[in-house]
Amino acid sequence: MTLVDSIRSGDRLALARLLTQVENDTPEGRQALDQIFPYTGRAHLVGVTGAPGTGKSSLVNQLALHYRKHEQKRIAIVAVDPTSPFTGGSVMGDRVRMRDLAGDPDVFIRSMASRGSLGGLAHTTAAMTQVFDAAGFEIILVETVGAGQAEVDIARLAHTTLVVEAPGMGDDIQAIKAGILEIADILVINKADHSGVENTERSLRGMLELAHPVRRVFRHHGQSMVMEAPKENREENIWIPPIQRTVATEGSGITELAEAIATHAQHLRQSGDWARRERARLESELEALIQDSLTAQFRADVSQERYNEILSQVVGRQISPWEATRNLLNGRHP
Amino acid sequence: MTLVDSIRSGDRLALARLLTQVENDTPEGRQALDQIFPYTGRAHLVGVTGAPGTGKSSLVNQLALHYRKHEQKRIAIVAVDPTSPFTGGSVMGDRVRMRDLAGDPDVFIRSMASRGSLGGLAHTTAAMTQVFDAAGFEIILVETVGAGQAEVDIARLAHTTLVVEAPGMGDDIQAIKAGILEIADILVINKADHSGVENTERSLRGMLELAHPVRRVFRHHGQSMVMEAPKENREENIWIPPIQRTVATEGSGITELAEAIATHAQHLRQSGDWARRERARLESELEALIQDSLTAQFRADVSQERYNEILSQVVGRQISPWEATRNLLNGRHP
Repeated sequence: MTLVDSIRSGDRLALARLLTQVENDTPEGRQALDQIFPYTGRAHLVGVTGAPGTGKSSLVNQLALHYRKHEQKRIAIVAVDPTSPFTGGSVMGDRVRMRDLAGDPDVFIRSMASRGSLGGLAHTTAAMTQVFDAAGFEIILVETVGAGQAEVDIARLAHTTLVVEAPGMGDDIQAIKAGILEIADILVINKADHSGVENTERSLRGMLELAHPVRRVFRHHGQSMVMEAPKENREENIWIPPIQRTVATEGSGITELAEAIATHAQHLRQSGDWARRERARLESELEALIQDSLTAQFRADVSQERYNEILSQVVGRQISPWEATRNLLNGRHP
Repeated sequence: MTLVDSIRSGDRLALARLLTQVENDTPEGRQALDQIFPYTGRAHLVGVTGAPGTGKSSLVNQLALHYRKHEQKRIAIVAVDPTSPFTGGSVMGDRVRMRDLAGDPDVFIRSMASRGSLGGLAHTTAAMTQVFDAAGFEIILVETVGAGQAEVDIARLAHTTLVVEAPGMGDDIQAIKAGILEIADILVINKADHSGVENTERSLRGMLELAHPVRRVFRHHGQSMVMEAPKENREENIWIPPIQRTVATEGSGITELAEAIATHAQHLRQSGDWARRERARLESELEALIQDSLTAQFRADVSQERYNEILSQVVGRQISPWEATRNLLNGRHP
């Protein structure tokens, strides 16, 4: 039985091994990615991002439990942890999750720490979701911490992106998050039993208006509604990010959140956005691979000695970085 | 008179024009960067980063005023504003600054908005600091907003990096900032007249201990001191980031901050770190230029039709992204 057959028949050990090879970007991993690629494109990728302290991990756990219990779907969780590029190490462990989801053969959880390059992290995450996709996992939850460029890059991979907030975060943190808010397909206020939930919702709604300026968004029986939208917009199939309240520790609001995720998937398919996102995702993956390959070719063509010699000339201000680049690139095929 | 001579003789109009060409990455801009490069390497690059609301811009203004008044140094300010990659536009204006620093021919202020790519932003910032450096500005203050990867990249350019905090930011925001804290050479608590300043300092000190685990840092007459450091560390020339309190709106603490910046520059030169940072900085600039050039060469070699055709095959799952990359790269020189 080939590796691909093993993966697709549900062999967890083969799956774990392949994920490691993909994470380490080995030749075997690359070859396997080639082979599994025709079997990808079926899973629903759901990104979950938010600041530390919002209870993201509990929320992801509860969503996974919901999908197992009520929809019998096969679930993969990729917990991406781009901790400081300086200290390294992984904060999130798999152990806490294991208590609830352990022993279920249709749930697979994988933590991934930063490998230095943040672009590389998004790339590796994309590759890992392809493995889960080919292995028949129907929903892949990709969890990231924070609001940096890495999260934005990883969110671009997802079909549906959840941005998780919690009451009691200051206005300043929200300002930082203005960028990440614009990638949200669904806004979740977790810990909705805490005080300040109304303030959080009001400020999120204000930011939604900024992000979607042609429309007025207001709260109506717990649903986001559009008012005063220009006629041409109203007739299009526009998605307004709903705001969902949850208390993950008690499991409340999870059914409604799962419904919102399903509604978003339906919207993507009906509007043609699913295919558009898929194409954009594959294009950025292709571009990253092209860039990696070009750099690898360059490294193979130019000796370390020559590179160091030219760098020393730059440091000594004898030649400019541009001149150095031209010298290095012209001298590749002597 | 050549452009380079004009710049070096203090022609502000020529300088402004060159900065625009560099920001737009025009062929003229690149050529000029080549020509000015031998005159660079003299300025002290000081990065200033921190969340919105910490009063960074006032602090930068006060520092500039201090250097003008007490040290007669020529000062450039580059205000980098990587606002949301989605909305674009610049929040910080030059107008507020102008009130205090207007009319001084030895101060030059330039705002720069994000050009989409964050890597590109760090790259453009580096090029602009080279222009100011060659034009004889002795201190270049580079101000960035937030705590994302862009700030970390830009901080890597600076000889001295100031991370600005303010009392009253929650613990959560601080957790996000653990990464950026590790790039700090000097920690500034601005708005030090606000309540909660003791808490802020305590939490920063705690984070400093995490970032510099071999040493114990405690506060002693307003100075950071080392205790219980292992012998081998005590004998090395190690820099412990001091914590400086300021009230930028009143100008208090600015002299002490300028002293800390000067002490850090002295430390860098004595320890050899100045040369090491310079080399690392030029190497990462060289690598970015090489990558840009490789991509440009690739784009010139491969027609858009061929690229689109191959991308469509990937989207249709006929070939994998890796196969597509190999096809595109092998077919470059037919």
